[in-house]
Amino acid sequence: MTATYLLVLTCILQILSYADSGFVSFEEARNAVIQAEDLLITGGRIHLNDKEDRANDIFMRYKMDELGAGFYDSDVNAASLHFFKGKKLVEKSKVLKFLKRMPKGAILHLHNTASVSSEWMVRNISYMPGMLRCTNIFGVSILSFRRTARDHGCVTQYVRVSDERVRSVNPAAYDRSFEKLINLYTPTPEIDYPTIKHVWNKFQNMFSTINDVLRYLPAFRAYTWRMLEEMYEDNVMYAEVRMDFKELYDYSGRLFSPERSLREVLSIVEDFRRAHPNFMGIKAIFSTHRNVERTRVFENFEMFKSLHKDNPNFVIGFDLVGQEDRGKPLHNFVAELAELPRSAKFFFHAGETNWYGASTDFNLLDALLLNTTRIGHGFALMKHPLLWNAVKKRNVAIEVSPLSNQILHLVADLRNHPGSFYISQDLPMVICNDDPGFWGTKGLSYDFYYAIMSLAPNHMGLKTLKGLVWNSIRFSVLTAREREYAFATLERAWDQFISDVLQGIV
Amino acid sequence: MTATYLLVLTCILQILSYADSGFVSFEEARNAVIQAEDLLITGGRIHLNDKEDRANDIFMRYKMDELGAGFYDSDVNAASLHFFKGKKLVEKSKVLKFLKRMPKGAILHLHNTASVSSEWMVRNISYMPGMLRCTNIFGVSILSFRRTARDHGCVTQYVRVSDERVRSVNPAAYDRSFEKLINLYTPTPEIDYPTIKHVWNKFQNMFSTINDVLRYLPAFRAYTWRMLEEMYEDNVMYAEVRMDFKELYDYSGRLFSPERSLREVLSIVEDFRRAHPNFMGIKAIFSTHRNVERTRVFENFEMFKSLHKDNPNFVIGFDLVGQEDRGKPLHNFVAELAELPRSAKFFFHAGETNWYGASTDFNLLDALLLNTTRIGHGFALMKHPLLWNAVKKRNVAIEVSPLSNQILHLVADLRNHPGSFYISQDLPMVICNDDPGFWGTKGLSYDFYYAIMSLAPNHMGLKTLKGLVWNSIRFSVLTAREREYAFATLERAWDQFISDVLQGIV
Repeated sequence: MTATYLLVLTCILQILSYADSGFVSFEEARNAVIQAEDLLITGGRIHLNDKEDRANDIFMRYKMDELGAGFYDSDVNAASLHFFKGKKLVEKSKVLKFLKRMPKGAILHLHNTASVSSEWMVRNISYMPGMLRCTNIFGVSILSFRRTARDHGCVTQYVRVSDERVRSVNPAAYDRSFEKLINLYTPTPEIDYPTIKHVWNKFQNMFSTINDVLRYLPAFRAYTWRMLEEMYEDNVMYAEVRMDFKELYDYSGRLFSPERSLREVLSIVEDFRRAHPNFMGIKAIFSTHRNVERTRVFENFEMFKSLHKDNPNFVIGFDLVGQEDRGKPLHNFVAELAELPRSAKFFFHAGETNWYGASTDFNLLDALLLNTTRIGHGFALMKHPLLWNAVKKRNVAIEVSPLSNQILHLVADLRNHPGSFYISQDLPMVICNDDPGFWGTKGLSYDFYYAIMSLAPNHMGLKTLKGLVWNSIRFSVLTAREREYAFATLERAWDQFISDVLQGIV
Repeated sequence: MTATYLLVLTCILQILSYADSGFVSFEEARNAVIQAEDLLITGGRIHLNDKEDRANDIFMRYKMDELGAGFYDSDVNAASLHFFKGKKLVEKSKVLKFLKRMPKGAILHLHNTASVSSEWMVRNISYMPGMLRCTNIFGVSILSFRRTARDHGCVTQYVRVSDERVRSVNPAAYDRSFEKLINLYTPTPEIDYPTIKHVWNKFQNMFSTINDVLRYLPAFRAYTWRMLEEMYEDNVMYAEVRMDFKELYDYSGRLFSPERSLREVLSIVEDFRRAHPNFMGIKAIFSTHRNVERTRVFENFEMFKSLHKDNPNFVIGFDLVGQEDRGKPLHNFVAELAELPRSAKFFFHAGETNWYGASTDFNLLDALLLNTTRIGHGFALMKHPLLWNAVKKRNVAIEVSPLSNQILHLVADLRNHPGSFYISQDLPMVICNDDPGFWGTKGLSYDFYYAIMSLAPNHMGLKTLKGLVWNSIRFSVLTAREREYAFATLERAWDQFISDVLQGIV
């Protein structure tokens, strides 16, 4: 680290003085700067062994083939296109295939109610007997397994989804249109979502659509299992998931407390781990919506305290969720947040915005002053030199979700994502997927695709990938013992992966 | 400066330690950080006098009214919209009106062949007797006042523009369609220019369309005068213009040497200054296209040397222009550039790209190693920590052209422009307009609109504006004496402007 720092200083001096002194050749000065910058990059100081080197050559061939095609024809430059425009390119990409097989460590920013692919939801949850649909006053479809019209805000009758499907001209077409209720995909995002409000409206509506479905005990169980399965299948070994532990219900109308809902999760995770020994399970970040009445927020503070007290190693911390621009800023809750138990960690959403000097980016400052463990998104961080320097010094990881930021209208071309800035200086960051179910991806691989193709420099491959994967464990809040186990497991999986790559299995 | 630096360090320490030590109150720590960041911002340390303070209040009311409306409805958020989508909003904006009246100092990045508004071109140049139109093999209209089909690459007959106009159903409609030949405007840029290649193709074609027109002596004279007039009318007092001094021709087919073309410019500028005493005129940055055969580039090196030798205080330096991604990198010309006379300054285009780790952003490194005086665009600079630190230490100004970067597809929402990063740390930067004629703006005010509405934080007003305006003289290459005169003139104009604002004249 110190050696690097010295090299950096030297290089700056070279740049400063080359033209006048000529004390090294142009090419020497040039190479020194390039090397120094390469060392500063995320993963830049990782040493690859011989096998990794060869695997990297293979990866770089895939990467440069795709970038090269995109350089010559921007119409096929998936790295720069909106995901919905580039989806077909990404899905047939060798880079993506490689990344799917790569052990990716942990997911540290994921909302459980948008965590499962819409495709699976349609094929499974929508076929569960008893699913109902009604329409609220805003014309949004609400799905549920119970008739509690007042809670649903519905202004229509309930219809059975199974009846609608049978009566439709074509059940497959019905399923396709059903999937649109819980997936933002459109082939023409530039027309359907011209500005941020259009996409956020639809996005928030999708939570309303699905919310009550996921409180139906049988659906909740199947869904939670599937969430783990989609992580596991994507070679993710662990996650810290934002969830709210709302009351559950069953077919008979019986209600189950948040404590019970938590026990359900624990038991599903336990079962899943038994069936998948290398999977480490999940921990929960208790999340409450920032944009409800203060009293409801405070009720949720209390619920968090209670759940955290009983399960300190599972309900690890707290977050406020929902569109920051529109919601209450952290500053509104400083006194109350400061009073939460010291064992609880904060994982605040902050700076998920394009505004500069608004309450949303002040959330970054407040999150840091509140000693947040990580920052959700932190998109606006770059505009705050004191804050990004503090993040760097304190090792507060930024949870970067490239696809989410693009789809939810923060950035069009992901090569402009501030993640490039973070990577260029190895700011603490992890790659996350936020709400993959709502844009039809599974696991972390798609976000890793953009991380390495759009955010990272062209010439970086396995080193940066490895840096990001290791970061996901390093910046998790696993206990020391769990972390040791996690790194050991990851090392084994990684070695196996490298061997598979070299044997052409990937 | 040192005091600020200490404050910054102190604040970082506060952020680092607040939560654990509680040595100041939360609000104290918060305010200290906010104040420190405000001091770091471009113009943050400028002291406004009482009158300026009151003018700032007026400006901030305009600014916050518009941003507020945009915050609540992203459809009318001009700061975030594509200029072509927000054009009507911007044109009726009180902020724009204020900025038009504001003295803006100098334009330091402007290409002369795209410097004049298309509207004026149609009303004037297209009505000059003898204008011809033909179509080249790519279907692009070529305009000229001479029949040199081989040079024009035309595959059609020449038609007289005046004949076409008379024969058209409606001359006004003809003029509108004629204007489209030299203006990128479309109400639906997201459809017409889905990716960078579409807009760059049209953009480059427009240079082909207009190129030979501007070598016709009478057109050249009228055009050059108008260029100065559009600056002057927009309260710009000086410019350093990228130009190429190609041979001119007249109606009889006579040709005029580059030296003569240069003398024409000098004499027009001289006449214009006599008629407009506060206008300081222009200097020229000799520009050659990077994307032609090496031999042509070298011929132009020779021409530059000769013109510079004879007019060292007018032909002040050198640049290579044209799309960097597609053109030859600076690195190809290092030896030759290093041999240009030491009195010649460099103003290299560098990093006008979304790529990271490509030849285009290596241009940034090479430009700095070649001791460039300023950097054209520098859009990718932020991704290179050694380079932006060098820029800061060496005071190499970045020529930021917000509209150009948006229209030419580097960034969709200008609140994501790296200019925000530069402003947040007062990196040396100036606001420029690049090719205003090709998107139908006049002068600098439109780019200043985006600088203060999109790039700067919400709460910054006159301080940042003044910082940017003063930067334009500070980072010009005026001689010490000229600079002194420029600052004195600017001060006077500024005071008058502030008085006008307070008297409600603006």
